[in-house]
Amino acid sequence: MQALPRFALAPRLRPTPYSEAVDAAGASIYSVYNHMRLPVCFESFEADCAHLKTHVQVWDVAAQRQVQLRGPDAGALAQMMTPRDLSALRPGSCAYAPLVDDRGRLLNDPIAIKVDDDCWWFSIADSDVLLWAKGLALGHGLDVVISEPDVNPLAVQGPKATELMARIFGDGIREMRPFGTTRGRFDGREHVITRSGWSKQGGFEVYVEGWENAMPLWDALFDLGTDLEVRAGCPNLIERVESGLLSYGSDMTSEHTPYEAGLGRYCAPEQVSCIGRDALLEAREKGPDRQVRCITMPGDRVPPLRAFWPVTTRDGEHAGRVSSASWSPEFDTNVAIAMIEKGHWEPGTVLVVHTPDGAKEATVRERFFR
Amino acid sequence: MQALPRFALAPRLRPTPYSEAVDAAGASIYSVYNHMRLPVCFESFEADCAHLKTHVQVWDVAAQRQVQLRGPDAGALAQMMTPRDLSALRPGSCAYAPLVDDRGRLLNDPIAIKVDDDCWWFSIADSDVLLWAKGLALGHGLDVVISEPDVNPLAVQGPKATELMARIFGDGIREMRPFGTTRGRFDGREHVITRSGWSKQGGFEVYVEGWENAMPLWDALFDLGTDLEVRAGCPNLIERVESGLLSYGSDMTSEHTPYEAGLGRYCAPEQVSCIGRDALLEAREKGPDRQVRCITMPGDRVPPLRAFWPVTTRDGEHAGRVSSASWSPEFDTNVAIAMIEKGHWEPGTVLVVHTPDGAKEATVRERFFR
Repeated sequence: MQALPRFALAPRLRPTPYSEAVDAAGASIYSVYNHMRLPVCFESFEADCAHLKTHVQVWDVAAQRQVQLRGPDAGALAQMMTPRDLSALRPGSCAYAPLVDDRGRLLNDPIAIKVDDDCWWFSIADSDVLLWAKGLALGHGLDVVISEPDVNPLAVQGPKATELMARIFGDGIREMRPFGTTRGRFDGREHVITRSGWSKQGGFEVYVEGWENAMPLWDALFDLGTDLEVRAGCPNLIERVESGLLSYGSDMTSEHTPYEAGLGRYCAPEQVSCIGRDALLEAREKGPDRQVRCITMPGDRVPPLRAFWPVTTRDGEHAGRVSSASWSPEFDTNVAIAMIEKGHWEPGTVLVVHTPDGAKEATVRERFFR
Repeated sequence: MQALPRFALAPRLRPTPYSEAVDAAGASIYSVYNHMRLPVCFESFEADCAHLKTHVQVWDVAAQRQVQLRGPDAGALAQMMTPRDLSALRPGSCAYAPLVDDRGRLLNDPIAIKVDDDCWWFSIADSDVLLWAKGLALGHGLDVVISEPDVNPLAVQGPKATELMARIFGDGIREMRPFGTTRGRFDGREHVITRSGWSKQGGFEVYVEGWENAMPLWDALFDLGTDLEVRAGCPNLIERVESGLLSYGSDMTSEHTPYEAGLGRYCAPEQVSCIGRDALLEAREKGPDRQVRCITMPGDRVPPLRAFWPVTTRDGEHAGRVSSASWSPEFDTNVAIAMIEKGHWEPGTVLVVHTPDGAKEATVRERFFR
C-alpha cells in the first residue's frame, strides 16, 4: 500500500470529546468531516471490518454535527430544505432526508430528527448546512434560530450492539425498529437514541448531549462490553462499500440529483413545497443521465482510491467514474461504488476501470452486497 | 515531536490540479481546507520557513476556493455579506472583507475581488460560504447565480517572488502595490493576479482559471526560477504566527466579532447596510470582551498545538486561550496567537499557558513581529 501522508492537527480541525480516548485506543488514520476529526482506521481496514461483523464497536461519530432549527418556523424551514415529506413525522422520530438546492442538486444527506414541534435537528454529512439554513432563514425572514448544539454522537455498531446497548439503556432498546427513535437515560441525563448507523451490521446512534456527558458513556460502554469483545471502531471503508452506504462529497456531490444517487424513494416533490421542487419534478420526469451502481473488479487488490477513477467501455468510451473502492475479504473480489452513465448501467455490463495500477475489468451489479 | 496521525485520502477531500506535483515535490504533512487538500509542510516547518524568508516558493493554495456571485444583484449581495464598505472598489480590484452573520459573528474572512460590475469572487477561508450566499440569494429573491468556478490559485511568495513573477508576467508586476490587482497573460490565457498571500515575505497570488492551465504555469515557475532557488512550499506555521496572520476556525471562530479578532479597521457598519449591522454597531460601542494578541513564551520549545491551550493568570484565573503556537528560530522564543480576555491584554502582562508539556510563562506583546 502506498504511504499515506501525515495529517496536521489544529483547533480548526476540531477535537471531539472522545478524541483522546480514540487516540489511546489506537486510531491510525484520520479524516476530516465537518471541520472535525473523524477516525477512519484502527488496526487495519480488514481487521476492523472483520471485528465489526462479529462483535460490537463504539464509534466516535461526533463529526456528524447537528444543525438545530428552533422556533415557530422550524418545521416550515425543515420542510423547505428537503423533498422528503416530513409531515407525518411525530416528535421524537427521524427520517433520512436528502437536502437539495434550487437546481435540485444534493447539498447534504442528513438524518432529520424532529426533537419536538418547534425543534428539528439535521444530523449532517460533510457540508456546512448551518450556513445554508441561516441564509435561508434570514433571507425569508423566518422566526427560527439556527445553531450547532453541544451534541456529540456515539455509534454502537455490530451484531452484539443490541446486547451492549440494552445493558446500559434497558431492554426497551431490543424492541426498536430500524430508524426508530427513543430517549435513553444514562447518568441522570436523557439522550436521543436512533436505531441507525453507518454500517449494515446493526446498531444504534446515541446523540450525547453535553461535552461532559460524553466520556462517561464511552467508558461505560467499554466497561460493560468486555465479554462482548467491544472495541473502539469507526465507519469502515470495506463494510460501507459492500453495503452501498454513500459518502456525500465522494459518491454523490452537488453535481447530482437525488435520483442519480439512488435516493429517489426519499423524495416526494409532488407532495411538498420544497426548494428545488420544479427541478426535481423535471429530473424525475426526464429520468437520470447517470446512476450510482455497485461494481466488482476481480483479480489483484485495487490500490487505495485517492481521487476518482475513470470508467470507460472496452472501446474507450466514457462510462462514468469510481468514487469508493476496496478489496472485500468476505466476497473475495474488489467492490466499488461508481456513478455510471446512461446506457452502461445494466447489471452484467462489463466496463473498464482505470486505476493508478492500470486498467481493470469491472462488472456492473444489480445491487450492493447488503 | 509527537507523531502525527496518517491522513486518509478520498475524492471528498478533493485533489487540486497541482496535487501530484505537490506530492512529487515532497509534501510531508497535509491539512484539509474547504474540502480540499492543502499541504502544510515539506522538509520541516523550520527549513521551509528559512527558505521562504530567503528565496521564493510556489504554493498550491487552490483550497482558497472562489465563491462567485454573478448577475445584476451580485454587488448588492456582496455588500450585504460584509461590513467592509465595497462601494469604492473598481472592477479588477480587491479588498479583505470579513463576513459576519446577523449576530455580527465571523463566518469567514475572504478577499473580495470585484471581477466586473456583475461578478464578484470571495476567495474564502475554511467554511462553505457558497451555501451561505445561496441561502441568502434564494431567501431574498436576488437575481444572482452563485457558483464555485474552476479557479485554482497559486501563490508565489518570498523576497524573490517579484523577480520570478516578472519573468513570466512582465515588468508591470514590479509596480503593483500591496493588495493591488492586475490581469496577467500566460500561455494565451488571462488570470487575475493580486499582490497578496498568506505570508509577510512579499508575493503574489495568481487566480489560475481552468484546470488545464494550472500545471503549465506551475512548471513555468519552476523552469524560470532555478537560479532563484525556487521550491514548492505552503503557508508556513512559524512565519504566519510571527506575522499575525489569523487562521479562521482556529484563531477566530463563529463565536467572535471582527473587533475581537482585531479586524475592526475593515468594518464600517455605520456606512453600509450589511447583515449584522446593528450587532456590529453595538459591539463596537461596547468594546470587545476579548482580543487577539501576540504572546511569547521563553524557554523550551512548545509541542505542536493540536487543540486550544488554556491561558490563566498566575493565580489561576481564566484569561484566554492559545490557538496557534510555534518555536521561532528567528526570534529565539516561542510565539503564539491567543484570544485574551479583557483585563489581561495589556502589553507586558505576564500570564500562564497550559500546554500538554506543562505550564509555561507567557508575556503579552503589543503587536506581532511583522
